[in-house]
Amino acid sequence: IERELQSIVSGNGADSSVTREAFRQAVANTLERRLFYIPSFKIYRGVAGLYDYGPPGCAVKSNVLSFWRQHFVLEEDMLEVDCPCVTPEVVLKASGHVDKFTDLMVKDEKTGTCYRADHLLKDFCKDKLEKDLSISAEKAAELKQVLATLDDFSAEELGAKIKEYGIIAPDTKNPLSDPYPFNLMFQTSIGPSGLTPGYMRPETAQGIFVNFKDLYYYNGNKLPFAAAQIGQAFRNEISPRQGLLRVREFTLAEIEHFVDPEDKSHPKYSEVVNLEFLMFPREEQMSGQSARNIPLGEAVSKGIVNNQTLGYFIGRVYLFLTRLGIDKKRLRFRQHLANEMAHYAADCWDAEIESSYGWIECVGIADRSAFDLKAHTDKSGVALVAQEKFLEPKELEELVIVPVKKELGLAFRGTQKNVVEALEAMNEKEAMNMKAELESKGEVEFYVCTLEKNVCIKKNMLSISKEKKKVHHRVFTPSVIEPSFGIGRIIYCLYEHSFYTRPSKAGDEQLNVFRFPPLVAPIKCTVFPLVQSQKYDEVAKVISKSLKVAGISHKIDITGTSIGKRYARTDELGVPFAITVDKTSSVTIRERDSKDQIRVNVDEAASVVNAVIDGQRTWEDIWSSYPHHSEESEE
Amino acid sequence: IERELQSIVSGNGADSSVTREAFRQAVANTLERRLFYIPSFKIYRGVAGLYDYGPPGCAVKSNVLSFWRQHFVLEEDMLEVDCPCVTPEVVLKASGHVDKFTDLMVKDEKTGTCYRADHLLKDFCKDKLEKDLSISAEKAAELKQVLATLDDFSAEELGAKIKEYGIIAPDTKNPLSDPYPFNLMFQTSIGPSGLTPGYMRPETAQGIFVNFKDLYYYNGNKLPFAAAQIGQAFRNEISPRQGLLRVREFTLAEIEHFVDPEDKSHPKYSEVVNLEFLMFPREEQMSGQSARNIPLGEAVSKGIVNNQTLGYFIGRVYLFLTRLGIDKKRLRFRQHLANEMAHYAADCWDAEIESSYGWIECVGIADRSAFDLKAHTDKSGVALVAQEKFLEPKELEELVIVPVKKELGLAFRGTQKNVVEALEAMNEKEAMNMKAELESKGEVEFYVCTLEKNVCIKKNMLSISKEKKKVHHRVFTPSVIEPSFGIGRIIYCLYEHSFYTRPSKAGDEQLNVFRFPPLVAPIKCTVFPLVQSQKYDEVAKVISKSLKVAGISHKIDITGTSIGKRYARTDELGVPFAITVDKTSSVTIRERDSKDQIRVNVDEAASVVNAVIDGQRTWEDIWSSYPHHSEESEE
Repeated sequence: IERELQSIVSGNGADSSVTREAFRQAVANTLERRLFYIPSFKIYRGVAGLYDYGPPGCAVKSNVLSFWRQHFVLEEDMLEVDCPCVTPEVVLKASGHVDKFTDLMVKDEKTGTCYRADHLLKDFCKDKLEKDLSISAEKAAELKQVLATLDDFSAEELGAKIKEYGIIAPDTKNPLSDPYPFNLMFQTSIGPSGLTPGYMRPETAQGIFVNFKDLYYYNGNKLPFAAAQIGQAFRNEISPRQGLLRVREFTLAEIEHFVDPEDKSHPKYSEVVNLEFLMFPREEQMSGQSARNIPLGEAVSKGIVNNQTLGYFIGRVYLFLTRLGIDKKRLRFRQHLANEMAHYAADCWDAEIESSYGWIECVGIADRSAFDLKAHTDKSGVALVAQEKFLEPKELEELVIVPVKKELGLAFRGTQKNVVEALEAMNEKEAMNMKAELESKGEVEFYVCTLEKNVCIKKNMLSISKEKKKVHHRVFTPSVIEPSFGIGRIIYCLYEHSFYTRPSKAGDEQLNVFRFPPLVAPIKCTVFPLVQSQKYDEVAKVISKSLKVAGISHKIDITGTSIGKRYARTDELGVPFAITVDKTSSVTIRERDSKDQIRVNVDEAASVVNAVIDGQRTWEDIWSSYPHHSEESEE
Repeated sequence: IERELQSIVSGNGADSSVTREAFRQAVANTLERRLFYIPSFKIYRGVAGLYDYGPPGCAVKSNVLSFWRQHFVLEEDMLEVDCPCVTPEVVLKASGHVDKFTDLMVKDEKTGTCYRADHLLKDFCKDKLEKDLSISAEKAAELKQVLATLDDFSAEELGAKIKEYGIIAPDTKNPLSDPYPFNLMFQTSIGPSGLTPGYMRPETAQGIFVNFKDLYYYNGNKLPFAAAQIGQAFRNEISPRQGLLRVREFTLAEIEHFVDPEDKSHPKYSEVVNLEFLMFPREEQMSGQSARNIPLGEAVSKGIVNNQTLGYFIGRVYLFLTRLGIDKKRLRFRQHLANEMAHYAADCWDAEIESSYGWIECVGIADRSAFDLKAHTDKSGVALVAQEKFLEPKELEELVIVPVKKELGLAFRGTQKNVVEALEAMNEKEAMNMKAELESKGEVEFYVCTLEKNVCIKKNMLSISKEKKKVHHRVFTPSVIEPSFGIGRIIYCLYEHSFYTRPSKAGDEQLNVFRFPPLVAPIKCTVFPLVQSQKYDEVAKVISKSLKVAGISHKIDITGTSIGKRYARTDELGVPFAITVDKTSSVTIRERDSKDQIRVNVDEAASVVNAVIDGQRTWEDIWSSYPHHSEESEE
C-alpha cells in the first residue's frame, strides 16, 4: 500500500484510478471515523453537499483561518469586515448573479428528477471511452474533444449533443428535457410581506464592494488598500458530487485589493520576486505543454502575469498554502484561458492543488479591473470612485456641452428635460461627432433613450466645445485584485497531502498518520501517564498546566490503553508531539513522524514543545540537544 | 453631559428617556462614524435589521469570540463543531421551530403592510399613559396591566384588545386584520427540484443535538461533556427595531452540556461557589422586589438555582461578561417566570445587561432536560441516549410480553403483524392493565393505531409477566444544560458600558472614549512619531517590528496631525496605549483613561505594553516603575 500511495503522491497516477479511489477511501474513512467531518443531519439520512466539521476538523479550520488572518489581514494591514449572508436582490442584480450565476440543467421528462447537463454528457463520453472498445479512433477523438471543450458549451450545443448521443436519464432511462439555466443561489424572502426577494450570498465580495466608499474614507482616502472578509457562502448545486469539494455551503476568505489602474506596482513586491514554483501559463496550456517552474519575477517582468500586484498576491498565496502543509510539487498556478475569463478581467490565475479527484481550484486570484465598483455605481447611483490629488495642477481639455434652453423648450416642450439630459450625457466622441455633423449639415438625428425615439437636434440648440482647464485632481474607479480562498477545499486537499500509512510495530496492520505541521494540527500535544497511577497523573497535571500557560492546545489521555495504541490514536489526529510520563522527575517527548523520543525534565517539557511549535527551534535541533529514549520498552 | 451620563450609568434613569436617547445617539454616532458598524447595503438604502461589522467592530467581535473560545471551549475541553446554516425541514420540525417559532402579525387591510401585533398594542398603551392626561386611574392601571402581561397574550386576546382600543395601522389609519402567526425562519429550497424545503437555522443548537451520538462516542462514551458551536443564525423579524439589538442575522455562540439527569453536580463547581452578583429570582419578581446580590453558593444550596451545573455556568457567564468589560452593577441574572419557561425546562436564567434600551437578554442559560434529544430520537428513529455501566449488576423487574403467534395468526391473518407490534409496544402500565382485564374477563378491546381500529384480544393470545433480571447498565436520555450567547447584543452593550466623554484640553469640545480592556480593544497600541521626520519614522518602525513579534495588533499613524488630535482619534477607537516617538533613544507611553504618560527606552517599549496587555503587570505598577512624562508640551 505504501508504494501505491507513493505513486499517487508523486503524481504517476494516470492509470491508477483504482488506487486513487482506494487512497481517497482510506483518507475518508479516517476523517469520518475521527470526526474531522460528519455528513450533516446524518440521523435524518443527511443532505447532499452539506457537511459538519467535527471537533478536530473544527480545530483545523480555526487554525487555518487564524493563520490566514495573520498572513494576510494583519501582515498587510487589511480592513476586515463582516457582512450578512442574507442579501437583497438589488445587490446581486448589480453584480450579475441574478442573471448569470447558473448551471445548465435537464429534467427527467417523466419523474422530474434534475441533472446537470454537462455532468451527463461528461459521464457518457468517459464511459464510452473507457468501456466501449468497439468505437473508432475518429469517434474517440471526437469524444475527447467534447470532454476538453465541455465547459464552453451553450445550452443549445449541450442539448444537441445529448440528442445526438441519445443520452437518457441514468436512473429511469426516461427521455430528458432540453437544457435550461438553473440559478444556483438559495432564494429567500426578507421580511413578512413576501415582496422583498433576497438570496443567501454566493460569495462574500459584494459586501466589500458596496462598502467601498466608507472603507476608502476610513483608509484616509488613500489607495492602494485591501479589505478582507471571512464568512459563509452558499451555492444550491444541482447534484453535488466530489464529497467535500463541491458543497452547498462553505467558508470563503476573500480579499479585495483596490488599486489605481494606472499604477499596479506593489510596495512589497520585492519580498516575493525570487520565489519559484509551478506555473501553467495560458500559452503552455494551449500548446499542450505542462506546468513548469518559473521564477515569479520572470513571470511578471515578461508580462505572463499582468502586473506586480497580481504577482505579489500569487506569491503570498504560494507561501500561505505551502506553510499550511500543501505539497509544493502538487500545487500549481494555472492562468485562465481567454474563454474562461470574464470580458472585463485583466488576468486570472487559479491556485490548483492536486488531489485524488485531479487538480482542484482552491484559490482564485483575479484582476477584475473596475467592473464591480462600476456595476454598483451604476445601480445605486452612489459614485464608488477614488481621487488622485496632483502635486501640481495639470492642464487638461474638458468637454463642455451647453444646451440652449430657450430653443430646446420651443422644440420639445414637455419632453425638453429628457432631451437635455441625453445631450449632457454624451461622451466626448459622441459630442465631437455631433458637433462635426451640426457644422456640416445644420441638424442631426439624435436618439433619446428615455423617450425611446429619435429627435432632430438643430445647430442653434446647443454649443459643444472643448475648454482648457487647470485640474487639481483626477477621479477614477479603482481596479480590484481579488484573491478568493475556498477554505474547505484547501483543508480537504491538506488532509490528502498530509495523510500516510505505516505498518504497526507487530506488522499486522497499517496505521494512519496525518503529518500536519504544528500550525495546523488540531491538538499540538498529548500527555500520557504511562500507566494508571496517581503519581503519574499528578505529573501530567503539572505539565498540562504549563502547556495551558504557554497557550498550547493539548489533551491528557489517562485511559489505561497500551502506550502504542495511544500513540496510534494520536497520530491519526495528526498530533505532532506526545509527552509520556514514565517517571516523576523526567518524561519523554515523541515526535510523530520520526517516532523519535527524547528525555527531558518535567519542568522543561512544556517549553521544549513550545519552542518547536513556535518555530524557535527545529526538532532536529532538539534531537541533538537531549538524551534519546528508546521506545522498545513500552510498545 | 458627564453628569447626565453618570445618572444613566448609575441607573437613575427612570425619568431620563431624553437623556438616554441622547446618550444612545452619542454612542451610535461614534460607532457609525468610526465604522464599528455599517448599515448593510447602505448605498442601496439598506435593509432593516442587517448590519455589517466594519474594521474596528470586526476586530472587537473577533477578540470577543477568541476569548469565548478560550474561556469556555479550551478551559472546559468542550467539543467544538461547525454545522451549516441551511437546514432541512425535518430537523426543525422535530425541534418545534416549524410549528412554533412565530410572532403574531397583523396586516393593514388595504395596503398589506405588516406589523407585530404586540408592538402596536404596546405602543398604544405607552403612548396613552405618557400623553393622555385625561385617562382615569382605573384605565391607567388597566393599561399598565396589559403592558406587564403582553408577552403571554394569545392571538385571540391580542386581537380582542386591538379591537377594543380601536388600534389602526399607524402609517395609513386603515383597519387591521386579526393577528395571525408568522414563522420567523427564512425559508428556502434545497436542490433544484423545489421539493425539499429548508430554512436558515434560527439557532446553532440543533446541529449539536443531531450529532449527539457521534460526539458521545468521540468522548469515549462518557458523561458529562459539552459541545459548542459559534455561527450565524437567522430570524426574519416582522419589523426590526432597537438597532443593533434586534437584527435578522446574528452570531450565536452556544454550549450544550450533556449530563446525567440523576447527577447534575459539576466537578469545578467549587471554583465559582464564592462568586456574588446581582440575581433576580422568580419569587422576587413576583413580589415586586428588585434584583439583589446573592452568593452563588447560597442560590444553589437553597434551591433557587436548580442544580450545580446550571449554577456553574451562571458563574462562568458572569466571569466572561465582566472580564469583557460589562459593568457588574448593570448586569443581572434573571430567572424565568413559570409562564416564560417551556413545560419541559427544569430552570432558566437570563444574563441581562442594562443598556439605554433597558435590560437586554444577552445570554440564556437553560436546563432543557431531555427534551431536544428525545424529540430527535422520536423523529429520526436513532436513539440519542447514554449508558451508565453499573459497578455491580443490579436486579430489576422487567416487563416481558410474549405473543402467541399461532393464536394471533388464526385471529388476524393479514393484519397479524400490526397487532403484534402494537402489543409489544405497550408500556408497563398498559400491559399490566391488560393482564388484569384478561384475567378477570378473558378478553379485551385493544386499539391498534396502524390499523386505526379496535381489535379483540383473548387470554390465549399472549402472556404478560414481569421477570427479575440482572442488569449491568442503565440506558437514559441525558439532560442538556444550554448557555446560549447573543454575541452581537453583548458587543453592543459593551459599547454602551465602555463609552464616555471628557472635555478636550481647550475645553471647547467633548471627546469620545471607549474604555475597552486590552482583551477587547480592536487595536492594542498606536505608534506616533511626534513630528514628521525620517529619524522618528525609523524608530516607529523598530517598535512596530517588536510589537509584531509580540503579536500585539497596532497601527502607526504618521500623519502630521497634532499629537492631541491623534490621541483623541485613538481614544475614540478605544486603543488602550499610545507610544509617541519624541526622541530617538526613548519614547513615551500613554494610557488611555488616565492620560498618564511614562518614559521608556525604545527597546523596552513593546515589552512594557505587552506586559500590561498580557495581564502580567498592572498600569499602576508600570506607573510607579518608570519616570513620568508631562504632556504639556505636545497638546
